[in-house]
Amino acid sequence: MDKELVIIGTIHSNIKDLTNAPKMETEPGAVRAKIVIDPAYAQGLDSMAPGAQLEIFTWFHKAERDVLMVHPRGKTERPKRGVFTTRSPFRPNPIGLHRVTLVAIEEPLTLVIEPLEAIDGTPVIDIKPVPKGS
Amino acid sequence: MDKELVIIGTIHSNIKDLTNAPKMETEPGAVRAKIVIDPAYAQGLDSMAPGAQLEIFTWFHKAERDVLMVHPRGKTERPKRGVFTTRSPFRPNPIGLHRVTLVAIEEPLTLVIEPLEAIDGTPVIDIKPVPKGS
Repeated sequence: MDKELVIIGTIHSNIKDLTNAPKMETEPGAVRAKIVIDPAYAQGLDSMAPGAQLEIFTWFHKAERDVLMVHPRGKTERPKRGVFTTRSPFRPNPIGLHRVTLVAIEEPLTLVIEPLEAIDGTPVIDIKPVPKGS
Repeated sequence: MDKELVIIGTIHSNIKDLTNAPKMETEPGAVRAKIVIDPAYAQGLDSMAPGAQLEIFTWFHKAERDVLMVHPRGKTERPKRGVFTTRSPFRPNPIGLHRVTLVAIEEPLTLVIEPLEAIDGTPVIDIKPVPKGS
């Protein structure tokens, strides 16, 4: 099967660059943001309703993919460890995963979500409901 | 940036086909399974230890990518809804997300995990630690 990702939408956020972005959506600085969905995937939003708890999958398009060990949270005083033991955006497939609340749905095809730490322009590759009991 | 995924490992499981697979790792039928990591990505496992709670990202290589609405859980008596309101493997980017416990690490480069519902041969595209407090 083809392993090329398609972009289903794009993050619109007041966080414009990586230097100011918090590292996790649960940390101070995460904001209310929007996902503008590509019209080609509009039907996939059918039955979505505000209040939903969602998992947003992003593609860290500015990350490096050939890095296998990092200093945790970029702190050089901490020893490097394997990227699969961290949530660093630097990894072979730089997929971001963010748990958010769907605050509102605006026309056309805009999801208002919070809290989010991803920067403006980040591609969105999937949206799933958070599993019950999780 | 290139949007082609790389395969970092492969699921080895006694669940051999989709007809017998449970739909969620929290459901009866999910099993102890293994991930065999591609040696090219071995360094990414540095500092990983048994007991860790992990998010395993898989690529549902047998799923259809051009489906935007599905019957929830495949039950045709339930009305179709957008795939982004379901965890169906049928979606534009058929990424699977599974929360598991790392039971053991075996040589060479094998992670023993449970519980998992993905079928034998499923490609693995990322591994992250579950965020604290989540």
